[in-house]
Amino acid sequence: MRILVTNCNTTEAMTKEIEAGARAAASPGTEILARTPLWGPESAEGWLDSFLSAAAVLDLLHGLDEPFDALVMAGFGEHGREGARELLDVPVVDITEAAAHLACLLGRRYGVVTTLDRTCGLIEDSLHGAGVAQNCVGVLGAGLGVLELSDDRRTESALLTAGRRARDAGAEVLVLGCAGMTGLDRRISAMLDIPVIDGVAAAVRLAESLVALDLKTSRAGSYARPLPKTRLWPRNSSSTCDAHDRK
Amino acid sequence: MRILVTNCNTTEAMTKEIEAGARAAASPGTEILARTPLWGPESAEGWLDSFLSAAAVLDLLHGLDEPFDALVMAGFGEHGREGARELLDVPVVDITEAAAHLACLLGRRYGVVTTLDRTCGLIEDSLHGAGVAQNCVGVLGAGLGVLELSDDRRTESALLTAGRRARDAGAEVLVLGCAGMTGLDRRISAMLDIPVIDGVAAAVRLAESLVALDLKTSRAGSYARPLPKTRLWPRNSSSTCDAHDRK
Amino acid sequence: MRILVTNCNTTEAMTKEIEAGARAAASPGTEILARTPLWGPESAEGWLDSFLSAAAVLDLLHGLDEPFDALVMAGFGEHGREGARELLDVPVVDITEAAAHLACLLGRRYGVVTTLDRTCGLIEDSLHGAGVAQNCVGVLGAGLGVLELSDDRRTESALLTAGRRARDAGAEVLVLGCAGMTGLDRRISAMLDIPVIDGVAAAVRLAESLVALDLKTSRAGSYARPLPKTRLWPRNSSSTCDAHDRK
Amino acid sequence: MRILVTNCNTTEAMTKEIEAGARAAASPGTEILARTPLWGPESAEGWLDSFLSAAAVLDLLHGLDEPFDALVMAGFGEHGREGARELLDVPVVDITEAAAHLACLLGRRYGVVTTLDRTCGLIEDSLHGAGVAQNCVGVLGAGLGVLELSDDRRTESALLTAGRRARDAGAEVLVLGCAGMTGLDRRISAMLDIPVIDGVAAAVRLAESLVALDLKTSRAGSYARPLPKTRLWPRNSSSTCDAHDRK
Amino acid sequence: MRILVTNCNTTEAMTKEIEAGARAAASPGTEILARTPLWGPESAEGWLDSFLSAAAVLDLLHGLDEPFDALVMAGFGEHGREGARELLDVPVVDITEAAAHLACLLGRRYGVVTTLDRTCGLIEDSLHGAGVAQNCVGVLGAGLGVLELSDDRRTESALLTAGRRARDAGAEVLVLGCAGMTGLDRRISAMLDIPVIDGVAAAVRLAESLVALDLKTSRAGSYARPLPKTRLWPRNSSSTCDAHDRK
Amino acid sequence: MRILVTNCNTTEAMTKEIEAGARAAASPGTEILARTPLWGPESAEGWLDSFLSAAAVLDLLHGLDEPFDALVMAGFGEHGREGARELLDVPVVDITEAAAHLACLLGRRYGVVTTLDRTCGLIEDSLHGAGVAQNCVGVLGAGLGVLELSDDRRTESALLTAGRRARDAGAEVLVLGCAGMTGLDRRISAMLDIPVIDGVAAAVRLAESLVALDLKTSRAGSYARPLPKTRLWPRNSSSTCDAHDRK
Repeated sequence: MRILVTNCNTTEAMTKEIEAGARAAASPGTEILARTPLWGPESAEGWLDSFLSAAAVLDLLHGLDEPFDALVMAGFGEHGREGARELLDVPVVDITEAAAHLACLLGRRYGVVTTLDRTCGLIEDSLHGAGVAQNCVGVLGAGLGVLELSDDRRTESALLTAGRRARDAGAEVLVLGCAGMTGLDRRISAMLDIPVIDGVAAAVRLAESLVALDLKTSRAGSYARPLPKTRLWPRNSSSTCDAHDRK
Repeated sequence: MRILVTNCNTTEAMTKEIEAGARAAASPGTEILARTPLWGPESAEGWLDSFLSAAAVLDLLHGLDEPFDALVMAGFGEHGREGARELLDVPVVDITEAAAHLACLLGRRYGVVTTLDRTCGLIEDSLHGAGVAQNCVGVLGAGLGVLELSDDRRTESALLTAGRRARDAGAEVLVLGCAGMTGLDRRISAMLDIPVIDGVAAAVRLAESLVALDLKTSRAGSYARPLPKTRLWPRNSSSTCDAHDRK
Repeated sequence: MRILVTNCNTTEAMTKEIEAGARAAASPGTEILARTPLWGPESAEGWLDSFLSAAAVLDLLHGLDEPFDALVMAGFGEHGREGARELLDVPVVDITEAAAHLACLLGRRYGVVTTLDRTCGLIEDSLHGAGVAQNCVGVLGAGLGVLELSDDRRTESALLTAGRRARDAGAEVLVLGCAGMTGLDRRISAMLDIPVIDGVAAAVRLAESLVALDLKTSRAGSYARPLPKTRLWPRNSSSTCDAHDRK
Repeated sequence: MRILVTNCNTTEAMTKEIEAGARAAASPGTEILARTPLWGPESAEGWLDSFLSAAAVLDLLHGLDEPFDALVMAGFGEHGREGARELLDVPVVDITEAAAHLACLLGRRYGVVTTLDRTCGLIEDSLHGAGVAQNCVGVLGAGLGVLELSDDRRTESALLTAGRRARDAGAEVLVLGCAGMTGLDRRISAMLDIPVIDGVAAAVRLAESLVALDLKTSRAGSYARPLPKTRLWPRNSSSTCDAHDRK
Repeated sequence: MRILVTNCNTTEAMTKEIEAGARAAASPGTEILARTPLWGPESAEGWLDSFLSAAAVLDLLHGLDEPFDALVMAGFGEHGREGARELLDVPVVDITEAAAHLACLLGRRYGVVTTLDRTCGLIEDSLHGAGVAQNCVGVLGAGLGVLELSDDRRTESALLTAGRRARDAGAEVLVLGCAGMTGLDRRISAMLDIPVIDGVAAAVRLAESLVALDLKTSRAGSYARPLPKTRLWPRNSSSTCDAHDRK
Repeated sequence: MRILVTNCNTTEAMTKEIEAGARAAASPGTEILARTPLWGPESAEGWLDSFLSAAAVLDLLHGLDEPFDALVMAGFGEHGREGARELLDVPVVDITEAAAHLACLLGRRYGVVTTLDRTCGLIEDSLHGAGVAQNCVGVLGAGLGVLELSDDRRTESALLTAGRRARDAGAEVLVLGCAGMTGLDRRISAMLDIPVIDGVAAAVRLAESLVALDLKTSRAGSYARPLPKTRLWPRNSSSTCDAHDRK
């Protein structure tokens, strides 16, 4: 089985980290393919970035030739998930929802610790759209930008502080709300003594499960195949028309 | 006062219609400026189109030189609203929320009639995000694609059928859920004997109100100014880096 | 266009203030007509006062001869709104809902700062009824009675304290929850650096918008015209019967 | 123990019926005292009537000299309940909430059958305010005005039709949503083979329970005693000032 | 009238206390019959205990020969209520829901103070299932195990501390969330100056009300009579088959 | 990895079917161990059965000596899940929640088709407790008892009818709401042309995922280890005391 993992931003180093995290979580026999969008923000922190990221990832997917069995979208709270479900014939799992689904299985209430306060609303909306917001006691910012996460010590300290606030608010399980936090889950878990979930790992396992059970995105209703029409895709918008979708 | 109106799709004829509708609704002294995105779908019907549209409209806004006092986003249910709020220093009103706000003032429950069933979920989510979903009894598809709306007779008949279903479900007010339906509101209203709201008109008036009261988007929290960072904007993604946002 | 503004209490001085606020917010060409109920509480602070106020305002409206194009009800959280919608053929906008509608356009979450804690529940219910409670993070009392608001310095200080609590709770926009606070919005906004909305101003602009768009209260369902029947109106309850409503 | 029952409208014959229903439901030793408001609508059907009724009943209570141990408010969906809680030192139970509370004990979901469709929203809001709306599957109008209920045969037939619709919608228990339906509960129950609750009977028993357990309305927060202030009560609004409340 | 009260745990001393509380609350002429399950936990603190308790109480009810007119289930938050409704032909009232129903009549918001934090979620779910969770501001643990409640002084102090937190969170009425707290309600109420409700007393009165009004559990839908089938009841699980339910 | 699967009822034949379904869904290398409770109902259809089943399964788990890495609870809508989480140190996944989690990944809305109408409420509550009810458009009964499912033809026909109703209500994905329906998912899916999820298969894969990611039930809060205390377990309730839990 081959799982494509898309980073939501243009930072290659982060794609590498995500790829490593995905590989560590995957079953033996699962191949991980990680890709970076060709345009968009270097990190996604807020709605402007998120909407650029969504289109950039869809643009990337639209141009891909390689076959894959499932897509994992590695952008915590970032948009695009439903569009990918329309575009692709394989299952799509986003790391936001994936982490929340597993969190619900491990405790009665969970919390999310993310980067900056400005992204909390975005994540709340993403959880709501995915249908798993009910048992979330809160999404808390750790006061760190996405690209500051490379400072491991500072990140760990900030996550611990935010994680304690989530626990005090009733979280029995913690979700790490950024693809760039991959790898920190076990250390935070040990320190706070509650399960901590990394979205990339969760999404890889859920994607594998869907493929194994031969379950695909429903084409009835919301995620029907895109209607054939003229779409000017951003990467070649100078051309007059892209009839690629007309089938 | 000058209000910029952005179409969500690349169909110029629809931009013209929206512009005319906006002008008809505007106060004397308000100048309407309508713009079409440079890329994206020719019509937005579903999440894939909507996410492309969101980025295309943000891309358009990012490249604009002209001054304006408020933005009206003419795409019913389409994404992008929150990103525009971050990007711009002027008020942003999207026609989805605008129509719903006015609908709440005219009846205890309202309904939305839109084009295809596949877009209903998108609109429900948009109303929820805007905080005005509670009194909505349903979003109903009329079975017509966006570009089929030019057939007036068929459109009117389809809207009447869907409008009656909404009324039977408890809607006391009807919202026309597509920018391309502008102009049909009064006829449908007369036939169904309930108020019918056109989102473009509603949004223009709300935008004027915000400007007149000197109210601007909050910069505290969700819609803070975009962080300065490298963003590769789609229109010039071949260039290495766009430092435009770094201030 | 002529907009009638009704105060919810019998204090004429407050009617004058509300009238001035309404005028300052109105478009050129809009005439403001302010009226005080003939009976009821001198200030509305709680359900008892609110229910008396609702009937007193309806009683006033029932007895009015003057023509007007829209009604603005200036009582934050006070009852009566839906009754006025049944009674009148012109649009009705209450300052509670009006402020909330505009607040939703300016930030992802808003908060309300009002007078006494005892009125908070009333306001919460009013927002819920109007369909705009979802994005409200809280209604907070400032610890001041309605008639104490004339002490500007104390009022400002109390509003700032409560406003900071609202902001800490996630409010990105603030609503001033009392008609008697009209005029303080800009100062509080400057001090807290978030948009602050005055309900009277918001309601006047929304009422103008509805009139301009020729939108009227729906008569289908909840706000149908009152059934003809014997109603003993309070002002002449010693008379045997008032057949005024029988048409 | 002495329970005061207030009718919400001015129709004496209905007060008599309510009184009889209350007596039939009361424990031995409970005295029932029924009163009619001095002004207001002859029947309450909609918000205008309901707000007049609320003030008229509060006006009545304000002027009462007789002692009583609890108040039962007999107006299904009518306003005023919270105001009476502020005004009185004895427990207050409204028939809307009372019926719903007992209904929740008898089935997983309940439905309400009321008079006209125009009053359904009012009842929904009243149930929501009382905190018991969650398990209600719907409030359905039977197409009969309050004063048409005296035609027993027609009423029974209309209630059966509406009751069947409620049952089909999932109602396992039925609430009769009008004080004027008192007495029909057992017949409808026998015909539909589900429990049917009369609000007057339910409220009398709940009021007795609160008195027996020495439980009184909380004075902490919402239902604190009315603030002393000038209130012009409607019945003597020609007088200059009523300082009755100043203690 | 004869009301059966079941303790949820096997501690006889607690059954005695519950019995005394029930008697003190009952009307003259009501006979109280208290029973202890034959197996299960000595105190119920969490889901494991609660599920054992539910089956043990149902097992007890299944084996009972004595006639009774209503059942009161004395286990705060414990499961079983809906099963008893299926099993018995008489009304069933559980002390959790009973306390909440009365609390809703006395204040706009209520809070629950219980034993250990680990039981709070259980109680929240029970209130939700009963349809009365909406107006609950929180369920708070007092940090005391069920069997520690016999230390009156420590219990009182812990309940006061938790009660103050509930009041600060907006509770206008307090519910004592454990059958073992029966008798403390008046003292806590006097100290906190808000109404405090004991679930056993509330349930006894509600059960009496249902019996007096001849209201029984609905057999339509959820609580239909158990289907006849082979059930191996735990007390005689060594036997091959119990056809008791086959009728 | 070894996964224990517990049937919720005493019917061995159904345990065999569930075991076969679990095996078919498991990864290579996963060992499936299926067990039947020693007492309880032969099929679970309603709350009485469900509460008996919950205790019987917990009783079974309490007495088990064999090691296993995760528990799958095969009873659709049946109680017990949270108790097992307290009791065991390994992850617990119930088939109800498992199916819903996967359904959320495949469509915007899902529906559940189950056996008898009387069990629908039970399932709704179970989905709500698990935090995944939001996107469920309805739980529909197919009019078949659990033990009638062995008639394949009748079952298929009944499921198709109910499945079409769910699809018409907006379900884009279908969940088979009974462990006894295992194996029918693909045929129903082919006929209705939407994804159909079998809870046993979903739960096995989710359990494997949790084990693979080394995620365990949180011990902070709700699912802390059971307190040591005297519990009389049903299977040896004639003995005086079971101190097994005291450690």
